[in-house]
Amino acid sequence: MRAEIIATGNELLADGVADTNSVFLAEELLQIGIETRFKTVVGDNEKEMEDAIRHAMERSDIVIITGGIGPTEDDITRKVVAKVTGRRLGLNEDALKAIKARLAGREYYNSNDRQALLPVGSRLILNAVGTAPGFILEEEGKLIAVLPGVPREMEAMYQDGLRPVLQERFGGRKFITRRVLRTFGMPESAVNEAIAEFMKKGAPQIGLSASEYGVDIRIIAHGLSAETAKALVEKAESGIRMILGDAVYGVDSQAMEEIVGALLMQRRLRLAVAESCTAGLISKRITDVPGSSEYFERAAVVYSNISKTEMLGVPAFLIKEHGAVSREVAAKMAEGIRSSARTDIGLSVTGIAGPSGGSTEKPVGLVYMAIASAYGVKVEEHRFLGNRRQIRLRASQAGLDMVRRHLIK
Amino acid sequence: MRAEIIATGNELLADGVADTNSVFLAEELLQIGIETRFKTVVGDNEKEMEDAIRHAMERSDIVIITGGIGPTEDDITRKVVAKVTGRRLGLNEDALKAIKARLAGREYYNSNDRQALLPVGSRLILNAVGTAPGFILEEEGKLIAVLPGVPREMEAMYQDGLRPVLQERFGGRKFITRRVLRTFGMPESAVNEAIAEFMKKGAPQIGLSASEYGVDIRIIAHGLSAETAKALVEKAESGIRMILGDAVYGVDSQAMEEIVGALLMQRRLRLAVAESCTAGLISKRITDVPGSSEYFERAAVVYSNISKTEMLGVPAFLIKEHGAVSREVAAKMAEGIRSSARTDIGLSVTGIAGPSGGSTEKPVGLVYMAIASAYGVKVEEHRFLGNRRQIRLRASQAGLDMVRRHLIK
Repeated sequence: MRAEIIATGNELLADGVADTNSVFLAEELLQIGIETRFKTVVGDNEKEMEDAIRHAMERSDIVIITGGIGPTEDDITRKVVAKVTGRRLGLNEDALKAIKARLAGREYYNSNDRQALLPVGSRLILNAVGTAPGFILEEEGKLIAVLPGVPREMEAMYQDGLRPVLQERFGGRKFITRRVLRTFGMPESAVNEAIAEFMKKGAPQIGLSASEYGVDIRIIAHGLSAETAKALVEKAESGIRMILGDAVYGVDSQAMEEIVGALLMQRRLRLAVAESCTAGLISKRITDVPGSSEYFERAAVVYSNISKTEMLGVPAFLIKEHGAVSREVAAKMAEGIRSSARTDIGLSVTGIAGPSGGSTEKPVGLVYMAIASAYGVKVEEHRFLGNRRQIRLRASQAGLDMVRRHLIK
Repeated sequence: MRAEIIATGNELLADGVADTNSVFLAEELLQIGIETRFKTVVGDNEKEMEDAIRHAMERSDIVIITGGIGPTEDDITRKVVAKVTGRRLGLNEDALKAIKARLAGREYYNSNDRQALLPVGSRLILNAVGTAPGFILEEEGKLIAVLPGVPREMEAMYQDGLRPVLQERFGGRKFITRRVLRTFGMPESAVNEAIAEFMKKGAPQIGLSASEYGVDIRIIAHGLSAETAKALVEKAESGIRMILGDAVYGVDSQAMEEIVGALLMQRRLRLAVAESCTAGLISKRITDVPGSSEYFERAAVVYSNISKTEMLGVPAFLIKEHGAVSREVAAKMAEGIRSSARTDIGLSVTGIAGPSGGSTEKPVGLVYMAIASAYGVKVEEHRFLGNRRQIRLRASQAGLDMVRRHLIK
């Protein structure tokens, strides 16, 4: 079953508002085996909305429209859907009753009545959160559903009203299982080459996307039963894991800081951090995770040279001799924070985030990081590409990954 | 001029990823008088992408496509655009040269070459941030532009490569001026009431949006000349500023950390920070700004109680008596970091970010912050609503705003 989601509203075209309703709906639909193949955003314009709905009905089996069913002049979705499906608008008594009940004891405007005018033959979806009712129509074997644009209302009405109908009509024919394998430390083209045989197969579908957090591998399998789909994903997953090994740090929406946190918790180890170029970003990410006080002790954000000496005991001559961005200073920073915080692990990062401060010898993007532990000190050198924001993000991810690799070794 | 934006990528259909590139592009296009009438999202599927591009070319004058031009198997946008416009793909030597230069000194994979295959007759858009080049085509009087899906690359290439071309071809027929006034410290309903007379007028259009960073006031004016539109916006802006005063901290995309940074620079003052519940977030934000080493000296991320004593000299009995989240401890933290860093200003934040750790007396969301300066110490108490992420963001924004207000006083 191919679904298309149409989000309506001028604010989605020009006011810097992202369409998040479709993100919610696509995720939900996938869970009941319905794939969203298109998303469209269109403004509060009759002709354009008509074009969008007509085209969606041509290429998709299920069309879900959000927005434009409130009480005001620019709420035109009801009218356009009636036109496209060749129906007239009629007063739905149940819808009207629900609107009046909802507004009981408040000022009532006649324009609210308008919301109860639905294309005749529609199945009503009551709105328990707001006033605008939704509806479902079937036309030429296609299902069209209309929900409000307010996320809270839309979500509740999807769960209570639309989802059961979709599940009854289309559910259980096809099962889809998804898995994302999150990797770090290999460029996208290297991941691509390493798992090319899996990508070429076509089933399960495998896609890559790269960001500062690494390369994500998406595995999507279809099957006639939930078990078949799951088995296909698991087979691909274990095959890919065999090839990529430790490069896979997590699955689905897991973040590196959660993985590192869980490992520290499991091993009952505590961490302290010394940050120069990332300047708080690593600490912020670690403490984004609830309960991180169990394993995160403190951090020194040592932006100036003197703070590296005063807070971490990095000898001033070492900075003078090798520079603040050097193997030697990274090592001393990690040892310094570990010993002052008395933690099991000390992590340090020092580098040049740019845009200025680079030289031929030490270019923007050069970052040293070190881990101090009972096993001694280990230093890594990285050369990150990108702008200041990207370099800082990549350095934070690499720093956390270094802790992860230390812990799983 | 009617524009349509097509975002491609399976992750936008099924991975819970919202299409934010189109939001950026629609905003930018509006500034040069081009209205986006449709946005479409389509997956990495040849037939479906072809359908989306063909339909866009029927109903829109300008079609901008993002994503699917990387080096991997599932990057099919180049191929589909070539097909729709009846062209073949040819190696673009300039594009290849740029890719090779960008990857110089690193491992090079042959799949990277693929990115230099562009539909013949395309105008190249170089990518200074990543490897995938973009391109512009003209076909049957329609303009088609293709940009990468990675937001940073897409944004830079729009500004440097696409925008000038669009401006030359289509700009100057209708003028739209926009301004955002960013406020902090007033709830949305209070801002709404304060500027109700401006909002009712209808022209210029005024809209509000609230986030953890405060309430943004959007002013949009249309005019037959750039001057008319600009004058309308400026009149509304100065009227609103008269009413809201210091609550307005910046305009357009200015962030609080940029404003604070500029004020510190101007006044030649230096800042150090002591963070407990924000745990690096404030330092990270301050150092997001290039050149912040001029005014940011260091920070102590004092997550444990003992680190507050060891790093900042907060007496242990004070923590025992009043708790780590208290006026008294906030004050000592600010004094401690100011004196150890020998800066003009010390900022401290301590609070309960949740989800656990709250009590009836000290609920989740309770945050104390303090500023120490030559004028003494000032402490503020806040009670923030929201989840952990929101409370931390709001606390970081309030802390930076406290520094701002201190500096403009």
